[in-house]
Amino acid sequence: MTAHSGRHFLQIPGPTNVPDRILRAIAQPTIDHRGPEFAELTKDLLRRVQPVFGTDGPVVIYPSSGTGAWEAALVNTLSPGDRVLAFETGHFATLWREMAERLGLEVEFVAGDWRHGADPVALAERLAADTAHRIAAIMVVHNETSTGVTSRIPEIRAALDEAEHPALLLVDTISSLGSIDYRHREWGVDVTVGCSQKGLMLPPGLGFNAVSEKALAAARTARLPRSYLDWTPILDANAHGFYPYTPATNLLYGLREACLMLEEEGLASVFARHDRHAAATRAAVRGWGLEVLCADPREYSSSLTAVLVGGAHDADKVRRIILDRFDMSLGTGLGRLAGRVFRIGHLGDFNDLSLAGTLAGVQMGLELAGIAVDPGGLQDALEVLRGE
Amino acid sequence: MTAHSGRHFLQIPGPTNVPDRILRAIAQPTIDHRGPEFAELTKDLLRRVQPVFGTDGPVVIYPSSGTGAWEAALVNTLSPGDRVLAFETGHFATLWREMAERLGLEVEFVAGDWRHGADPVALAERLAADTAHRIAAIMVVHNETSTGVTSRIPEIRAALDEAEHPALLLVDTISSLGSIDYRHREWGVDVTVGCSQKGLMLPPGLGFNAVSEKALAAARTARLPRSYLDWTPILDANAHGFYPYTPATNLLYGLREACLMLEEEGLASVFARHDRHAAATRAAVRGWGLEVLCADPREYSSSLTAVLVGGAHDADKVRRIILDRFDMSLGTGLGRLAGRVFRIGHLGDFNDLSLAGTLAGVQMGLELAGIAVDPGGLQDALEVLRGE
Amino acid sequence: MTAHSGRHFLQIPGPTNVPDRILRAIAQPTIDHRGPEFAELTKDLLRRVQPVFGTDGPVVIYPSSGTGAWEAALVNTLSPGDRVLAFETGHFATLWREMAERLGLEVEFVAGDWRHGADPVALAERLAADTAHRIAAIMVVHNETSTGVTSRIPEIRAALDEAEHPALLLVDTISSLGSIDYRHREWGVDVTVGCSQKGLMLPPGLGFNAVSEKALAAARTARLPRSYLDWTPILDANAHGFYPYTPATNLLYGLREACLMLEEEGLASVFARHDRHAAATRAAVRGWGLEVLCADPREYSSSLTAVLVGGAHDADKVRRIILDRFDMSLGTGLGRLAGRVFRIGHLGDFNDLSLAGTLAGVQMGLELAGIAVDPGGLQDALEVLRGE
Amino acid sequence: MTAHSGRHFLQIPGPTNVPDRILRAIAQPTIDHRGPEFAELTKDLLRRVQPVFGTDGPVVIYPSSGTGAWEAALVNTLSPGDRVLAFETGHFATLWREMAERLGLEVEFVAGDWRHGADPVALAERLAADTAHRIAAIMVVHNETSTGVTSRIPEIRAALDEAEHPALLLVDTISSLGSIDYRHREWGVDVTVGCSQKGLMLPPGLGFNAVSEKALAAARTARLPRSYLDWTPILDANAHGFYPYTPATNLLYGLREACLMLEEEGLASVFARHDRHAAATRAAVRGWGLEVLCADPREYSSSLTAVLVGGAHDADKVRRIILDRFDMSLGTGLGRLAGRVFRIGHLGDFNDLSLAGTLAGVQMGLELAGIAVDPGGLQDALEVLRGE
Repeated sequence: MTAHSGRHFLQIPGPTNVPDRILRAIAQPTIDHRGPEFAELTKDLLRRVQPVFGTDGPVVIYPSSGTGAWEAALVNTLSPGDRVLAFETGHFATLWREMAERLGLEVEFVAGDWRHGADPVALAERLAADTAHRIAAIMVVHNETSTGVTSRIPEIRAALDEAEHPALLLVDTISSLGSIDYRHREWGVDVTVGCSQKGLMLPPGLGFNAVSEKALAAARTARLPRSYLDWTPILDANAHGFYPYTPATNLLYGLREACLMLEEEGLASVFARHDRHAAATRAAVRGWGLEVLCADPREYSSSLTAVLVGGAHDADKVRRIILDRFDMSLGTGLGRLAGRVFRIGHLGDFNDLSLAGTLAGVQMGLELAGIAVDPGGLQDALEVLRGE
Repeated sequence: MTAHSGRHFLQIPGPTNVPDRILRAIAQPTIDHRGPEFAELTKDLLRRVQPVFGTDGPVVIYPSSGTGAWEAALVNTLSPGDRVLAFETGHFATLWREMAERLGLEVEFVAGDWRHGADPVALAERLAADTAHRIAAIMVVHNETSTGVTSRIPEIRAALDEAEHPALLLVDTISSLGSIDYRHREWGVDVTVGCSQKGLMLPPGLGFNAVSEKALAAARTARLPRSYLDWTPILDANAHGFYPYTPATNLLYGLREACLMLEEEGLASVFARHDRHAAATRAAVRGWGLEVLCADPREYSSSLTAVLVGGAHDADKVRRIILDRFDMSLGTGLGRLAGRVFRIGHLGDFNDLSLAGTLAGVQMGLELAGIAVDPGGLQDALEVLRGE
Repeated sequence: MTAHSGRHFLQIPGPTNVPDRILRAIAQPTIDHRGPEFAELTKDLLRRVQPVFGTDGPVVIYPSSGTGAWEAALVNTLSPGDRVLAFETGHFATLWREMAERLGLEVEFVAGDWRHGADPVALAERLAADTAHRIAAIMVVHNETSTGVTSRIPEIRAALDEAEHPALLLVDTISSLGSIDYRHREWGVDVTVGCSQKGLMLPPGLGFNAVSEKALAAARTARLPRSYLDWTPILDANAHGFYPYTPATNLLYGLREACLMLEEEGLASVFARHDRHAAATRAAVRGWGLEVLCADPREYSSSLTAVLVGGAHDADKVRRIILDRFDMSLGTGLGRLAGRVFRIGHLGDFNDLSLAGTLAGVQMGLELAGIAVDPGGLQDALEVLRGE
Repeated sequence: MTAHSGRHFLQIPGPTNVPDRILRAIAQPTIDHRGPEFAELTKDLLRRVQPVFGTDGPVVIYPSSGTGAWEAALVNTLSPGDRVLAFETGHFATLWREMAERLGLEVEFVAGDWRHGADPVALAERLAADTAHRIAAIMVVHNETSTGVTSRIPEIRAALDEAEHPALLLVDTISSLGSIDYRHREWGVDVTVGCSQKGLMLPPGLGFNAVSEKALAAARTARLPRSYLDWTPILDANAHGFYPYTPATNLLYGLREACLMLEEEGLASVFARHDRHAAATRAAVRGWGLEVLCADPREYSSSLTAVLVGGAHDADKVRRIILDRFDMSLGTGLGRLAGRVFRIGHLGDFNDLSLAGTLAGVQMGLELAGIAVDPGGLQDALEVLRGE
């Protein structure tokens, strides 16, 4: 490995740059997970994590990746052969659908062009057609990490309400949680799936399910086999500050620190910061003469921006040059977007000057890759950052 | 919380005292899990972790607790309704059995007194009776964390071989891995289940499955639903140094450091150290006039010692006094042993003087709890430690 | 180097075992030493450190070893050729005397046997004889780190008061600060010399001078050349939260944490803990049949205990065996005590079980070195620790 | 304090951004400074630090700030009343001169305009006039941290050689060491003064003297009083891997890590990187239409750039805006430059994208302060960084 000076720019859309405070927090000595000090930690944590999801109900925390939390949302609420409705918003929506199928669910997958979010109109149509209420759950990715497109969850909720359809609403907030305004309770979401390594600024290793009363009721009759991911024993033990297994104690230390950091900055400020950084990034992309993948301004992601390199250019070559020359990691194009886009993560513990450095690196990388860009792009971004 | 001076003595049988080196390792910045540096890390790690299991075959690493790795061993190899044979060696064997049942397996549970390991003779009998080879797998806990009793895996293997029975051998090494001599390949184990927070000296958050060729073959036909814990996509991605999901990167940093530490000390020395500390602990227990729970000297655990307080004494009162007065955590009596035993963990990153301090604390705690003990117990332990 | 498992026992009388909290604190990113955040840190720190010295006056903090703080006490208050009176209480008193001579002072050195503290009666005699008030300062080591003997500063003060002698009182509290009751203001000390790596539980690198009004007045006319160690520019800059040079920022982070820890435990509890640990240690030494170096019970040190090995035994051989076999560092015999004593540090971040482990290691080491000791010694110590 | 997201940009010309590796290194447990492990550390360190100074002779390491190392250079080589020749290159040259006077030396101070380095021609004139060889030493600041101007040490050396003048050459490399090419031995320097918190990327707390044979000879007759800073006992103890006092162990851990990092990148690459970053910074300054303080291109500093804000603008207002809005610290104008310049540190652990972020922040800050700048400045810098 070449020796690199200075800090690596980890500008993939997660894992994000873990702040020092959190790294120091997770480096505290592990304690007895059945002792009084641990019980205090858990109780404090479960309370502090609720506002991040916009809920006052239970949040189940798993030692798992986000994928594990995806599976938990399904196995706790559904039974073999249940029909679920999902939207092809991108690579991760597709993976979640595949998981559902592998677990024995029947998935109706609404096709998409990977440039738009879940379509509330299409949903309304399907719901209207489902007079027998065979659809047991709707699966939506709030912020598609592969495309930088958000889905408008309140409109999804409205479609369900209007149709008076009893389907559960399962929402993946993997790359929006703690970055983009999200309201589990207000939006009537039944299971919100999250993870640690994006807006929560932690290393990977924790998965989350925020759970509604309706989801808890569904869990009582759901028959997909489950044990490790079963909510019930966890919620029972949580009531006393414990877990039915040994939890990932040191990551929980980090989670507490993350919650404190979000409280200190204030969630509204956190979201506004992400919005501003995303706007600056899009200004740069347009200034360069390139195209943002997300096609609908109502669905712009504030966590990441996927950029179409256009023409015959190879987006992965750009990424390689930027990694080699400027020690910055960008997200690759996934699935059908391979080679055509790169993704800039601007979420988590981040600030204006780091974004400026990031965009400067992208601009230089594009130039070095032989892609003609207008260098005014960076300046356009700075004008957004500077404000007036 | 009372302010405590000095280091807490975390003498439960795991999580164990995480060494500073490992805490510093996990505090390194998270990197891109799809980049070249991560691929190097994974490849190096997967190679280094093999000798710890005594295998040269694949080791699957999960972001999960040990419970998740238990589940992985079952769902990857078995189908709904399969019959498995398990041994009631203690609390954790009982929990694993319950998990198997919850997942839809039919468990034949060989009763036990929680003071002995799995009985090779009883196994031979069952195998002989199972002429139709309906038993698909044998589940054994190598080191029962609730009792301090080990099972003699080579004898279990011999019984299977003698009966020419095709059942898979699934072994839980949660609290023996990296502490007690264990040989996945030599002993013909099919799935070895491990976790990070015991002999591996890491914080909790990683689960392990070491997998035999036979287990891989079984996985191809096993029909229990699985997705997150499925070996196949993980092994496929591992071949290139990656994971199909975002792995627990910072715990993997710690795992690399743990492997280096085990290499530096040498596994044989690590096991000898644990044996010596266990012998010293038993000398103390006997010197005090108390009884070790494990009834068969061939099955003494080198990771932990469960101590019967005897009479009407409350083992949890002893633990509470020791926590309050001496800032040391001991393991509680689990399940049917509640109140009757406490457990001393002497595994992981540990040394003679820390053990001496531990035993001194136990001795003083027993005295303060009003249990008449001979103070010569500690001296007996020191004689073992000092050698001669 | 041999691989050692578990934590090293650093039982020299300083540097002491630095607690994790402090290590994490010093690992925080360095900040601008001329910015507003630094000013807040300094002001907070200078306030918090006062009670540790028992003063409400200024405390000067140097990026230096304790030796630098010794020099600061002399060069800020004295002029070339000034006469100072010092007491031969041990190795460090002798070194401080040599420093004074090297700096051009004339030292009257009251001989001692290295088993007693500074003699107030001898002092009274010298003061009475010094009718011309030629003695400009008295230099006393509060806790002689080489011998484990304290000097009774209140009686020293009383002798000065009774003689109505204007000499400054300079006291070295290198190994007593934060461990043994000490009162700069109440005892009328003019300069108290301290450092970071003993009772303050920090790594080495900070030196301290607590300064009286009278010392500040003396500084105005003192003519020993000084620049780096000059109090005046430091106190001037401190008033605004700054330093005239770049201070050791990260160690100051650690100092803040150390002050917080002392506040949490409470100084009175901290001192009582050290007293109790010292009493237990002496009980062990006597139980073994060995002799404590300190000859006067009024002068027992609560920070460390120097033990005479007796006969023809080599104390350094004992230390070597203990380091090799038990990974514990003990203090060597210094100067005229070389080979005859070893020193057990029991100060700083320490607790009962670590002391028990320490004494167990000493006992086993003595036995392995062939020194006949009664193994009841450890048990005697435990009785002190256990209390009634 | 306002909550800030992301990492602070510490772009003062030292302390610099301490890399995580070094922070983790200094967080290792403190060890016995008289034990065998410490001796190995010291010996390794003293060898590794030599190339950083360009010497194969001794390097004395102090627990001190750079100011302490300044004093060490003087007190070890000079006697009361000695005449030294110094150059008014800026604020720090002036402070060093004041220190020399305070210590009793007679300083001849060659006036300067704070925009040029030490003038070899002026030196030649003074040396020629000093036929009696009354000048005992020449004091030069290699890189004036207050101005961003370097002095051409080889030309200073040449002037001494040509004049066949025996004066010692004392050089301050506080802000050039490890950043700008420097050769203690090749350039015939007698004492090189350095510190930890600049190019060495450490927190503050260590001072350095690299010492020539001639300086060692001078030390044998020098009569300025000294004790703590005396080279002799340190070099004697260093020969065995020790120190005569308790050294700043944890900072020494960091120093070892810093030496490893410099070795990995290679000193030549380190210097080239600093040159490139400085060139990019000057390109930005000129692009903005502002003036670099350094007046002679041969004397441009590669560690920092001082920028004249021009007109009636207040440089400190610019700095305040940048700190408040962009969480970046810049250096203030010192002494006679107060309010007229700000200083951009681009030394230590730094890279292209961090520099781009830094310059973006300066550009936006200038704009927000109402200073008309051409936004093409940043683009000019990127062209330098991008190269061809």
